[in-house]
Amino acid sequence: MSTAETTAQAGGPAQECHLGDVFDTQESRVRSYCRSLDAVLTTALGSVVRDSRGREYIDFLAGAGSLNYGHNDPDLKRALLAYISRDGITHSLDLHTTAKRDFLESFEALVLAPCGLEHRVQFTGPTGTNAVEAALKLARKVTGRRNVIAFTHGFHGVSLGALAATANGHHRMAATTSLPDVTRMPYDGCFGEGVDTAELLAQLLDDPCSGIDPPAAILLETVQGEGGLDVASPRWLRRVAAIARRHGSLLIVDDIQAGCGRTGTFFSFEPAQIVPDLVTLSKSLSGMGLPLSVVLIRPDLDVWEPGEHNGTFRGNNHAFVTARAALEKSWADDVLSTAVAARARTVSRELARMAEFVPGARLKGRGMMQGLDVVSGTVATEVRRRCVADGLIIESSGSDDQVLKVLAPLTTPDEVLAQGLAILFDAVVTSSYLAGDFPRASTERSAAHG
Amino acid sequence: MSTAETTAQAGGPAQECHLGDVFDTQESRVRSYCRSLDAVLTTALGSVVRDSRGREYIDFLAGAGSLNYGHNDPDLKRALLAYISRDGITHSLDLHTTAKRDFLESFEALVLAPCGLEHRVQFTGPTGTNAVEAALKLARKVTGRRNVIAFTHGFHGVSLGALAATANGHHRMAATTSLPDVTRMPYDGCFGEGVDTAELLAQLLDDPCSGIDPPAAILLETVQGEGGLDVASPRWLRRVAAIARRHGSLLIVDDIQAGCGRTGTFFSFEPAQIVPDLVTLSKSLSGMGLPLSVVLIRPDLDVWEPGEHNGTFRGNNHAFVTARAALEKSWADDVLSTAVAARARTVSRELARMAEFVPGARLKGRGMMQGLDVVSGTVATEVRRRCVADGLIIESSGSDDQVLKVLAPLTTPDEVLAQGLAILFDAVVTSSYLAGDFPRASTERSAAHG
Amino acid sequence: MSTAETTAQAGGPAQECHLGDVFDTQESRVRSYCRSLDAVLTTALGSVVRDSRGREYIDFLAGAGSLNYGHNDPDLKRALLAYISRDGITHSLDLHTTAKRDFLESFEALVLAPCGLEHRVQFTGPTGTNAVEAALKLARKVTGRRNVIAFTHGFHGVSLGALAATANGHHRMAATTSLPDVTRMPYDGCFGEGVDTAELLAQLLDDPCSGIDPPAAILLETVQGEGGLDVASPRWLRRVAAIARRHGSLLIVDDIQAGCGRTGTFFSFEPAQIVPDLVTLSKSLSGMGLPLSVVLIRPDLDVWEPGEHNGTFRGNNHAFVTARAALEKSWADDVLSTAVAARARTVSRELARMAEFVPGARLKGRGMMQGLDVVSGTVATEVRRRCVADGLIIESSGSDDQVLKVLAPLTTPDEVLAQGLAILFDAVVTSSYLAGDFPRASTERSAAHG
Amino acid sequence: MSTAETTAQAGGPAQECHLGDVFDTQESRVRSYCRSLDAVLTTALGSVVRDSRGREYIDFLAGAGSLNYGHNDPDLKRALLAYISRDGITHSLDLHTTAKRDFLESFEALVLAPCGLEHRVQFTGPTGTNAVEAALKLARKVTGRRNVIAFTHGFHGVSLGALAATANGHHRMAATTSLPDVTRMPYDGCFGEGVDTAELLAQLLDDPCSGIDPPAAILLETVQGEGGLDVASPRWLRRVAAIARRHGSLLIVDDIQAGCGRTGTFFSFEPAQIVPDLVTLSKSLSGMGLPLSVVLIRPDLDVWEPGEHNGTFRGNNHAFVTARAALEKSWADDVLSTAVAARARTVSRELARMAEFVPGARLKGRGMMQGLDVVSGTVATEVRRRCVADGLIIESSGSDDQVLKVLAPLTTPDEVLAQGLAILFDAVVTSSYLAGDFPRASTERSAAHG
Repeated sequence: MSTAETTAQAGGPAQECHLGDVFDTQESRVRSYCRSLDAVLTTALGSVVRDSRGREYIDFLAGAGSLNYGHNDPDLKRALLAYISRDGITHSLDLHTTAKRDFLESFEALVLAPCGLEHRVQFTGPTGTNAVEAALKLARKVTGRRNVIAFTHGFHGVSLGALAATANGHHRMAATTSLPDVTRMPYDGCFGEGVDTAELLAQLLDDPCSGIDPPAAILLETVQGEGGLDVASPRWLRRVAAIARRHGSLLIVDDIQAGCGRTGTFFSFEPAQIVPDLVTLSKSLSGMGLPLSVVLIRPDLDVWEPGEHNGTFRGNNHAFVTARAALEKSWADDVLSTAVAARARTVSRELARMAEFVPGARLKGRGMMQGLDVVSGTVATEVRRRCVADGLIIESSGSDDQVLKVLAPLTTPDEVLAQGLAILFDAVVTSSYLAGDFPRASTERSAAHG
Repeated sequence: MSTAETTAQAGGPAQECHLGDVFDTQESRVRSYCRSLDAVLTTALGSVVRDSRGREYIDFLAGAGSLNYGHNDPDLKRALLAYISRDGITHSLDLHTTAKRDFLESFEALVLAPCGLEHRVQFTGPTGTNAVEAALKLARKVTGRRNVIAFTHGFHGVSLGALAATANGHHRMAATTSLPDVTRMPYDGCFGEGVDTAELLAQLLDDPCSGIDPPAAILLETVQGEGGLDVASPRWLRRVAAIARRHGSLLIVDDIQAGCGRTGTFFSFEPAQIVPDLVTLSKSLSGMGLPLSVVLIRPDLDVWEPGEHNGTFRGNNHAFVTARAALEKSWADDVLSTAVAARARTVSRELARMAEFVPGARLKGRGMMQGLDVVSGTVATEVRRRCVADGLIIESSGSDDQVLKVLAPLTTPDEVLAQGLAILFDAVVTSSYLAGDFPRASTERSAAHG
Repeated sequence: MSTAETTAQAGGPAQECHLGDVFDTQESRVRSYCRSLDAVLTTALGSVVRDSRGREYIDFLAGAGSLNYGHNDPDLKRALLAYISRDGITHSLDLHTTAKRDFLESFEALVLAPCGLEHRVQFTGPTGTNAVEAALKLARKVTGRRNVIAFTHGFHGVSLGALAATANGHHRMAATTSLPDVTRMPYDGCFGEGVDTAELLAQLLDDPCSGIDPPAAILLETVQGEGGLDVASPRWLRRVAAIARRHGSLLIVDDIQAGCGRTGTFFSFEPAQIVPDLVTLSKSLSGMGLPLSVVLIRPDLDVWEPGEHNGTFRGNNHAFVTARAALEKSWADDVLSTAVAARARTVSRELARMAEFVPGARLKGRGMMQGLDVVSGTVATEVRRRCVADGLIIESSGSDDQVLKVLAPLTTPDEVLAQGLAILFDAVVTSSYLAGDFPRASTERSAAHG
Repeated sequence: MSTAETTAQAGGPAQECHLGDVFDTQESRVRSYCRSLDAVLTTALGSVVRDSRGREYIDFLAGAGSLNYGHNDPDLKRALLAYISRDGITHSLDLHTTAKRDFLESFEALVLAPCGLEHRVQFTGPTGTNAVEAALKLARKVTGRRNVIAFTHGFHGVSLGALAATANGHHRMAATTSLPDVTRMPYDGCFGEGVDTAELLAQLLDDPCSGIDPPAAILLETVQGEGGLDVASPRWLRRVAAIARRHGSLLIVDDIQAGCGRTGTFFSFEPAQIVPDLVTLSKSLSGMGLPLSVVLIRPDLDVWEPGEHNGTFRGNNHAFVTARAALEKSWADDVLSTAVAARARTVSRELARMAEFVPGARLKGRGMMQGLDVVSGTVATEVRRRCVADGLIIESSGSDDQVLKVLAPLTTPDEVLAQGLAILFDAVVTSSYLAGDFPRASTERSAAHG
């Protein structure tokens, strides 16, 4: 153990100041999440993380959806320790390894086959944005077209190819250069109930003079994790899938945040009964938060030349080991799916209770990917500040960061989930009250609840 | 241990066939390295990897430069096992963690301070291309300019922003879309001895009507790992650094392959005594082949807004742990540097011997990043095939894949290095002979050597 | 007179064949209008053109809106002959000339001042697309932004900068390269009565995560000449102007086809009472069909550096002479405006009569820029073929070329207008009948008309 | 005649001030040439223009090469007056007209056939930049490639597609957006005598990892009119033509300024004995300064779809009439060519005399497209100022505007040419003297000359 670490673990405020200095002086200003959590994390287990001062936090952030199975799941940890202990190969580029083979077999048996998918697996550089880059590149290569349809509030990464598809202005403005070859279209519900945005898309693509060039692909999330937890309806998804097919465009589902069980099924698009041509997965794929990303490719579309799209870490064997363990543990039966459904109901119910105390509040998302739109980013910031103080880590998303996101691990024990939601409830109610918008009727109900 | 894995370890040819099928049927055609190594790797230690049939291979590929300290270094492995065992936090986005703090402190003390650098560290998505994307984006943001100068034979990744700077036609053609905002310039030596390409660059940038827009950055490798091991001279590097400064452009050294000690010093640019504005590192940074990437930023250029460039895996704590252990083990003194110099001399000497048997052959590279240009890609392929058969993994690079690359771990024991070079010698001599180009004089010398 | 011309004028079919050969063998296949008019034109006066066989045609094409004052107006012709006869300077780049000075004075007194506009005049290369290129470039320079909003069915030219804003797929597909930095939005009425597309635009621009970057400009036509004669309502135009103002974007009205009196007022946007920041004019500006194009620039936005946007023919003195004569003749009083209104009513009435014979037909456009959507491009082609045979030149536009366009000179005498409309009536009725869609009730009415 | 014009012709300084105001208040700041000539031009004949105060100027600018046959050539003027008088059709889009037919026939007989060219003629919007846009678009369509090679100091226009190929930084910086899909290469002589830039180009294109994508076209001027009168040698041109052919790229010669006899032959590339795939012509094509532009297309490359590239003024009949008259007058025999050669020798001799008085001065260009590099833009500006004061209009070009350009009409009578060169001589000698660089020896010679 390093001297610094020992000090930290024993440490009080003085050391913390010093430690804070290290990040301030050494790490780039680009750091962000750490700005709302004044702590240096040390260990983590399940849904709870612990800092260098011994404080514990319930984790409703969960690595922005990368820790669906919680921190350091014992079974995954055991498999990884065993692999490392016996000198299992760690880095192998895209050479064949037993770790990769086992992952592929489990993934085929437990994920693809049950969904009736015959897709092939491309291992890209282990970040979500790399998977999106690969998918877009392949779609363009397959079709010989440049244009890609992406949607309002979509988030697909920040390397230039993916950033062109990302809607967030904060990220887009950082580019300085043009972000070409993507056409933005309104997501399901973007213009309110009365406007069927799939219909608008169909009309524009059917019209040779609309100015929308025939797309290589239509790229979408079924639930927009960073965009504010907007949800595409199964009907809309099927409509868009049909439009893609009619126009010779590939349907790409970016399931990086919504996939791997976050919405209850492994793939978020299963309930809609669509078959995407390409699927991107990352975040929770490795199960333990290790970097891993893939593109799933309909076999007949796998027209890559060898090495045409590459990357040094495209074979992360540690991640293969934990990913396989996660699949074997959680997707061989429907225990997890069932539990997710139950927990999602709990979250819905509690968020609905909170919503009563925030004028204009709306429930967002589905499955264990729900949140509360508290209308104002200022209020949401105050809520998050209060949550941290009370031992809950939670983030928000949306255009004004006004949507509080409950991204707890899918495996969060009921009592921990309840505890976290209770902290959130108090923070929401108090913040809304302080914002001066506290409605009288709600107050009474709140009292009753108390 | 999985059934499949047990089978494999026990297995003979029949099983292998079956196993091969898994990759054939499940993995995308984009896979490449595995096409020249018909094996399923299981374990690895130091400079030797082992496959499921129990065969061992000396590794002169070393994760394309990601395993400078060899496979599964015991000290790194021990630190990682300890960290995992005590539930050290694995995934934390960019929240503060003790693992990151310790890495930052070691990196500052052992790498930056000795070089007199005050650069800040940006953790990007853990792939080289993500680091390059971040560096280019920052350079454009700082300067408000779009254009970037990159060089012939440069390789910087395949996400769209980095791909624009990559010279390799195989990768570029896969894009379908335009790759704008990069101007290609000839690398040092590109036009032969007689033409000082830094002078050409200076002339074009000094001329407002050259058609080369003022660049945000000049991006270069000091040794072109993928391009064919061309080396920029210290004089050329200083000249280019001065040109960048005069034109208000940032100098970015992409040290992803040449850095982390590969050429003897930690940074490849140290001998040239230049101070890049931005440096990208990845590959061997984590020490054990775990995904990790950073951009080093001159403090006054760190103008990022929080979260403006992000990525889910930008804090890979396992990699922080092994990276720190690697730094503490190898960069607290000059033992490794000295050893690299000695081994590099060995490699030079042996490659020179081989060169005598290949008409037109040239030695390329420097440090432990040397190779032999055998003129013909066909010959190089044959050499690699023979090496694999004899238990040596080696790759080639260059326009025609004609440059055999000796990228052995820096820590390769002398006898293993000698053994690998002997295999390579035989393969080179035989392949050259079979290619019908075997010069008489060389034959004699070869016999003498035998 | 040339030998060839003499031959032609005397000539019959045989010569014509030979003459056709000249175009076939010498002119590029890109030629288009000539494919539907098998004639070699010689002279033209007012609304009538004459071919080498002595045939006369009423001209409802009028140079695609370039001949608002008819062919070879005697007063314009006289002014031009006088100017040439006294060796008035023809070509002068952008040097000051008396011809330019006189044009500027007339344009200020007769066009700008009455509209309360203080815009400055930029003379661009004398094509519409050059004016659009200049306007877009200036808007980007003024705002430092790249993105431009353009609309479905918009047509703005085919040089790359303008083509990015043009919606027509036939023209866009010819580019091969990307057409970046333009966001397509739905024009007024694009999604039917129920959807206020200005509201959609406002919502998307107000949302920082819509993925629509803040625009440098919003570029629109008030009547889409090439797009199918869709008309933007005054209310929609005012709404879009307000949106542009709120977002710091320039409003550019491309009045190249709809301007110069085509809709009754000099500028087509006058009835909407909006003040565009930039206006492009061309086509009928010179009055006689001579090449001339300008951008009108709100004075405080005129931030060009000298010569920053240039072009050899940006001072076409012959065009200045005829342009000034046209302004003095037609815009010193409201005689022409009044006449246009009357003729437009005639056109409306007659098109409405025709519409009764075409199931699903719709009247399009306004002023002397009206047309009939006959639903099918095939029918429209047949109509045009019949018209030509009967001595009427007319074109169609729209996604399927299904909108017959009455673009007669504004000065067309009532009897010629009636004659042309009668030819069109017969062609429409017959073509619709032959298409098998002829409704019984309509037949009776047609008979009554006969 | 307008009141304003009458006043002007009668007028003195007071009126001029007022008139100046019209341009100041009404015309955009983008105007440029007029800033160095404080005059309002009225008439012009041959090589002499006259202003509103009755002053006469010898014209060594000649519409930047648009007036090779001088101003208002009597024969061209006569043909145009006749055509207009008999109501010859003025504007006809791309409909067949006798004026176009006659032009095509003359162009084929007098220009194409004698050169052995079978190229087809595409009439583009009548500006040079439109022709370049069309040529680049066609080359990309033919090859399916995006990249275009263009050269240092090249000038091809300022609409976005052409601007990407233009090297001038002043024009490029005005774009704000990216200018993609063009690779800049060094022009002949760019790196001095010792470096064969065609060889560099060949090496880069032969290397699949140079980062230069296979080009759709190589675009060049044989003499760089705006870039500073650099001349490509016949050997270099043949070498580049061979490179283009070997790589399946089209060779496009932009002969807009150097063509139409400016260098002695009709096409500037004739002496090099190359056959470009595409040629752009404009400027002097109409003979009288009227807007006209064409692309000449090798027949098998004419793959345009009808109307795919269009433009309202692509059939400028007045220009056809004068263009044909110019061809018939000047290209039916070699009288003009011979005269150009003689005048070019005069210009060479006189420029050489001037060069002796300017330290470091160099002669540039060839034919009647020669100039003097006086090293400093400040000196050149002073020379031009003095010339104007003495009755000579002359411009400069080059990176620092340091190359004085003698672009007199090809038809300039010997005595007028001598007179203009004498004015230039005095201005050069005096300006150089005042710049303090006047060498002693030169002074003596100057005195002798005096």
